[in-house]
Amino acid sequence: MYPEFNHSIPRRKFIGDLSKTAAGLAVLGWQPGHLSLTVQQVMDLVLKEGNLSRIADTVDTLKTGHAAQPVTGIITTMFPTINVIQEAIKHKANFIIAHEPAFYNHKDDKGWVKDNGVLRQKLAMIDKHQIVIWRFHDYCHALQPDAVSYGVARKAGWERYYKTGQLSLTIPAISLKQLAQHLKTSLGISQVRVIGDLAQSCTRIALMPGAWGGQRQVNAVETEKPDVLIVGELSEWETAEYIRDANLLGQKKGLIVLGHSVSEEPGMEYFAEWLRPKLPGIKVTHVSSNDPFTWL
Amino acid sequence: MYPEFNHSIPRRKFIGDLSKTAAGLAVLGWQPGHLSLTVQQVMDLVLKEGNLSRIADTVDTLKTGHAAQPVTGIITTMFPTINVIQEAIKHKANFIIAHEPAFYNHKDDKGWVKDNGVLRQKLAMIDKHQIVIWRFHDYCHALQPDAVSYGVARKAGWERYYKTGQLSLTIPAISLKQLAQHLKTSLGISQVRVIGDLAQSCTRIALMPGAWGGQRQVNAVETEKPDVLIVGELSEWETAEYIRDANLLGQKKGLIVLGHSVSEEPGMEYFAEWLRPKLPGIKVTHVSSNDPFTWL
Repeated sequence: MYPEFNHSIPRRKFIGDLSKTAAGLAVLGWQPGHLSLTVQQVMDLVLKEGNLSRIADTVDTLKTGHAAQPVTGIITTMFPTINVIQEAIKHKANFIIAHEPAFYNHKDDKGWVKDNGVLRQKLAMIDKHQIVIWRFHDYCHALQPDAVSYGVARKAGWERYYKTGQLSLTIPAISLKQLAQHLKTSLGISQVRVIGDLAQSCTRIALMPGAWGGQRQVNAVETEKPDVLIVGELSEWETAEYIRDANLLGQKKGLIVLGHSVSEEPGMEYFAEWLRPKLPGIKVTHVSSNDPFTWL
Repeated sequence: MYPEFNHSIPRRKFIGDLSKTAAGLAVLGWQPGHLSLTVQQVMDLVLKEGNLSRIADTVDTLKTGHAAQPVTGIITTMFPTINVIQEAIKHKANFIIAHEPAFYNHKDDKGWVKDNGVLRQKLAMIDKHQIVIWRFHDYCHALQPDAVSYGVARKAGWERYYKTGQLSLTIPAISLKQLAQHLKTSLGISQVRVIGDLAQSCTRIALMPGAWGGQRQVNAVETEKPDVLIVGELSEWETAEYIRDANLLGQKKGLIVLGHSVSEEPGMEYFAEWLRPKLPGIKVTHVSSNDPFTWL
């Protein structure tokens, strides 16, 4: 039996496991196609290949299923929605690696809302098909480069401007309106929300896909001094009002809100590419979560 | 000198103040037009006329200025943006009663982000014009009826369906798409985000303008069992994903996201109407904060 992937595993034991599993795969002449890896072995491999140190208090735990289950296929995605789970079933892939929660709250606490009927129905589907869900959030951002910001920069055609470890990048001057249009086109987003002078010139960009929280978003604008802040989502009473006031005070600070899921999706797409050659015996498929909203 | 309006004022002293100020206004034959009320007197009057018990740990404190300052005019609004402050200056009104924070975080902590240049510029404008800002959030929702939900229901033409103290109301059947269009038109909103089957019939509505947080939003859907949840804003990884999954699982649960500021604005508009006849000597003007976003 493999231990559950949680922070109760002491570091020494974890390293020991690695040498028996993932590390052993390549070194000990593992041949693809005839060996079924377990969930635990895949997780170990990701951490080893990513040179990732264990994070003590991470949300990146198994949300459903067991670490000892043999993996029949891997789906990467942003949110393990019902659609994504159905796609996994179609692909006969029983292991979903998702960037965001399965149960509608950061810690995936199933008791967050009492008698949650939607959650109950979702769990029944997951149990029936023995789907294992691993949240891959903190480790994903800890990769060098951060898989999400790198994946987004790459998909936006900014790979040459991207510097590992830096929040901001400098691109050739473009108007705020053109930048918003470019992001819609390159990332495949139907609509975005913008604050600022659409004609203002943008060259320095603070790229913060996902939901970093108002304090970090506002702090990034104050310290990085970008022309424009790009986020996945925000609290309107925090970052949006700060940017609105900044512009009313004559400071040219643009803001583009992409939507959470679509803002980080290129990161999990990139992660699938990263993972694929490391697991030649297992099919790794990226399934997009897409924007949940219809804009009317 | 009047004490600052904060929770360090003992209840007995507060009641004593009331009897000297607001309560005295009507009873003791106060004549409009020749007496300048202080900020403290106006706040006391609001609490007295609203039958509001003091809330121990409220965010409804003075964010700028002093309680002893004589009031030259009152502006009600959702967010005390730079625009709203400029309007106040134009109206020669030095007292802004705002539903939401002035400084981009719930507690209006000025040190939330270090060396915040936008905040510094805003404070300089406020100081120069001696504008007093009172946040009127918790008390606003504590009014009977809750000024916000009542104000929104009234503006949407649902006054006859509104019941004080109830989160949900039942309206004549309407499709989700028509409902979204109706809210855009009646509340003056340019664009909304929707999840669900646009053709589904809606009659039971959970009306939650503003940002109640995912836990309360999801809990409301589970316990009130509405056809549609209407919110101001949400965390996408919480309520939006829950509603998306619900629909994918065959449950008809619509969601309409109005935007924070525009979703509660009718509440502060209603509050201005409520306050006006109680302060015949002071001009009370509602200034809309409006949607900060351009939708592209």
